[in-house]
Amino acid sequence: MTKNAEIIAVGSEMLTPQRLDTNSLLVTEHLNLLGVEVVMKQVIGDDLERLTAAIRTAVARSAILIVIGGLGPTQDDLTREATAAALNRKLVLSLEQESILITRFRQINRPMARNNIKQAYLIEGAEAMPNPHGTAPGQFLSTSCGAVALLPGPPRELKPMVEHELIPRLRPVLPRHVIRVRTFRITGIGESDLDTLIAPVYTKYTNPTTTVLSSPGDLSVHLRARAGSVSEADALLREVGNPIAELLADRVYSENADESLEMVVGRLLRKHRATVSTAESCTGGTIAARLTERGGSSDFFTAGYVTYTNREKQEVLGVSRELIERHTAVSEPVAAAMAEGARRRSGTTYALSATGYAGPEGGTDFDPVGTVYLGVSGPGGTRVVRVRYGRDRDRVRLLATQGALDLLRKTLLKG
Amino acid sequence: MTKNAEIIAVGSEMLTPQRLDTNSLLVTEHLNLLGVEVVMKQVIGDDLERLTAAIRTAVARSAILIVIGGLGPTQDDLTREATAAALNRKLVLSLEQESILITRFRQINRPMARNNIKQAYLIEGAEAMPNPHGTAPGQFLSTSCGAVALLPGPPRELKPMVEHELIPRLRPVLPRHVIRVRTFRITGIGESDLDTLIAPVYTKYTNPTTTVLSSPGDLSVHLRARAGSVSEADALLREVGNPIAELLADRVYSENADESLEMVVGRLLRKHRATVSTAESCTGGTIAARLTERGGSSDFFTAGYVTYTNREKQEVLGVSRELIERHTAVSEPVAAAMAEGARRRSGTTYALSATGYAGPEGGTDFDPVGTVYLGVSGPGGTRVVRVRYGRDRDRVRLLATQGALDLLRKTLLKG
Repeated sequence: MTKNAEIIAVGSEMLTPQRLDTNSLLVTEHLNLLGVEVVMKQVIGDDLERLTAAIRTAVARSAILIVIGGLGPTQDDLTREATAAALNRKLVLSLEQESILITRFRQINRPMARNNIKQAYLIEGAEAMPNPHGTAPGQFLSTSCGAVALLPGPPRELKPMVEHELIPRLRPVLPRHVIRVRTFRITGIGESDLDTLIAPVYTKYTNPTTTVLSSPGDLSVHLRARAGSVSEADALLREVGNPIAELLADRVYSENADESLEMVVGRLLRKHRATVSTAESCTGGTIAARLTERGGSSDFFTAGYVTYTNREKQEVLGVSRELIERHTAVSEPVAAAMAEGARRRSGTTYALSATGYAGPEGGTDFDPVGTVYLGVSGPGGTRVVRVRYGRDRDRVRLLATQGALDLLRKTLLKG
Repeated sequence: MTKNAEIIAVGSEMLTPQRLDTNSLLVTEHLNLLGVEVVMKQVIGDDLERLTAAIRTAVARSAILIVIGGLGPTQDDLTREATAAALNRKLVLSLEQESILITRFRQINRPMARNNIKQAYLIEGAEAMPNPHGTAPGQFLSTSCGAVALLPGPPRELKPMVEHELIPRLRPVLPRHVIRVRTFRITGIGESDLDTLIAPVYTKYTNPTTTVLSSPGDLSVHLRARAGSVSEADALLREVGNPIAELLADRVYSENADESLEMVVGRLLRKHRATVSTAESCTGGTIAARLTERGGSSDFFTAGYVTYTNREKQEVLGVSRELIERHTAVSEPVAAAMAEGARRRSGTTYALSATGYAGPEGGTDFDPVGTVYLGVSGPGGTRVVRVRYGRDRDRVRLLATQGALDLLRKTLLKG
C-alpha cells in the first residue's frame, strides 16, 4: 500500500510572476524514490490564517505533509505557528536548539537578534532536524498514519536536510519496496518520432513506468521499476529497457542521467587521446562554449574560430574566395573547407564546423532560414551533413550546436 | 479595494519531479497588472474528488479563481466536471461550440473522436472563450463577487487566451486604478551591495513597491506604482526612481525590462557604426555567443577567437611568446595583447578579451581560481581590468562574459 504526500511552499515572494517553487521538485523526486506519490502542491503567502487552514486540510487528506519555507526569524515567518495551530499543538522552547543557535551566532561573530529565538521553538512532539547551513532547524513529527515535516526554503539548506535528515526519518514510516531507474539520453530524433518508435514496447507494461522528457534537441526516456528486491526491479528494467535500447541504437548517447552530450564527447576524445577545434559561423561560438563548459576541457579543446564574415573565413581558415563565390558561405563545400581549415590551423585530430542561416533574415530558395551545414574533419576524412531546424533563431543555434557535437560523437564511435 | 485571486494548475504530469507550473507566472503577471494579488497557487493531479474540493474551497475564499489545464478530450481531463460540481451547476452542451469543433476537425482533415464532444460542454452560465490554437475553448463565469475562469494548459493556447479573452473580461469586474512600472537593469554590483545602496530610498515608500530580482551578474529593480491615473502613478515612479537612478549611475545598463546587456551593447555599437571581435580563453566562446545571440549581429560582430592554448594565442592573435613566458597566459599584459591582436587581425573598431582561471583546477597564489583579466581595445587605447569571481566554474564563465560585455558598454558610453 502506498502513501500520498502533499507539499506546501510558504512565502509571499513565491507568488510573484518571477518566482517558481523549484524546491518541491527535489522533494518530489526523493519522495517518488521512496514510492510515495505527491498528489497536491500548494504555494501560500505569509498569511497565518490561510496557511493554518491549508495545513489542517492537507494533514486530514494525505499521510505525509512537507512544508517548505517560512522558518526564518522574522515576523513574516509563520510556518511554525501555523503548523502548531493546525495540529492543535503548542510551540515549546527547546533549550538544546537555543544553545545551538547561540553557539552558531558566536561562531560567525554576529550578535543574535532577539527575534532569532523564534527558531529554537519546536512543535510539541516534533524532533529537530539539524541545519548545518543556516539558523533554522527543520522539524519532523510522526503522526498516527504518517508524518509532517517542516523544511527551510533556501535550496542549499533544504537539499542536505532532505537527503540526510528527512528521508532517513520517512523510510521507517513507509511500506518497504525498491525503486530502480534506467535512463536513456537521446539526440538526433524528435519527440513524436521517438514515441512512435518505442511506444509499442513500453505501453505493454505498467511496471516499469516510462516517461519521455524533452528539451530542444535533447530527449530522455526514464524507466522506473518497482519491486520487492533490487534484482527483481533490475530484471523488469532489462525486460523493457533492452528492446528500447535496440530500437534507439546509436541515438542513445548515454545511459547515465547526469551525462550531457558534451560530457560524452569529452570522454570519447580523452579515450582516443584526440583533440578538437571548431570553425563556427551561424552558431557564433556556442559549440566552443559547450565543449569548454566543464573543467579540464583543455585536455582536448585547443581553439575555436568564430568566422562571421567571408573575409574571416578566408584569412583565418584559408577557405578560398572562389569557393565562397561559387557556392556561397552557406554550402557543403564551405562547411567542409571550414572544418579542414580549423583542423589544419590548430593541428587538432578533429575539427567541427557550422555554417547556416540562423535567421530571422537571410536564406535562399534552396537553403531557407534554418538550414545549417555541419562538418566534421578528422583522420578518416571530412563529412558534411545538411540539416533543417525551423525558423526560430535560438532554436536553430541550439540544435545546430547539439547536431555538431553529435556528429563528432558518432565519428568518434566509429574511429 | 483590491480583490484576491487563486490559481489551480491541473494535471498529474505537473506533480512529477521534472515539471514546473510555469503557466501560473504568466497569469500572475497579468493579474498583478490589473492590481489583483495572487494569494494561493495549487497543483492538483487528475483526481475528480480532490479537484472539486479544492475549487470549492478556493471559490469560497477568493474573488477570482483561475483553473489551468484539464480541458482536453480524454477521461483524465476533469476540470469542467470538477468546476461544475464545485459550483453546483450543470454542464450544458453548447451547440455553437459543437459546430466550432466539427468545423475545426474538418479543417485539419482529421476525424473527430467521440470523446472530443466533451469539449463542447460549458458550465451553466459560463461564456466560452475562443481558442484559435486548440480544440478546448476556455470558460468564463461571473460570480456575485468575482469570476471563475477555465483556461487550457498548453502555453501557446493559454497565452493568447489570457491576453485577448481573459483580461478584457476581468477588467470590468475589478475596481478601477492604474499600475505603472519602472525597471532598472543593472550589472557590476552584487545584490546585497545594491540593496545597501538603495534601501534607504525605497524603504520610505510603500507605493511604489520595490522588488529586487537577481541572477548571477545581472540584477533588476522593479518599482510598481498604483494610482488613480497614469500621471499620478508616473509622478510616484519619478519620486522614488530618480534618486535610485542617481545612486546607481552607470551601473544601470537599461531602463527597458526586456533589454539584455548584449542588446544594449549591440545598440551602442550600431549607433557608433562600430564593430567588435573577441579573443577568449577561459570564457571559451561565450562572449562571442552572447554577442551573436540576436539576429542582425553581423552588423557589428565579425570574428571570435577562442585561443585555449598558448600556441593559439601566439599564432592567431600574435601574442608574443616572451610576454606569455614572462607574465603567464593569465595576466594583464596578455589580456591586453589578446584584445589588441584580435582587433588587428579582424580590423574591428573594438575587441574584447578574457583570460583567467575558470577552475576547478589552476590558479596561482596571486591569481587564484576565479581570477579573470578582461580587456577592451579600441580607438582610445587598451584597458584591462582584473576581477575575482569565486570558485564555481559556470559562475566564473558567466560573470566574466557579463563583465566583458559591460566593459565594452562603458567604453562605448565614453567614446
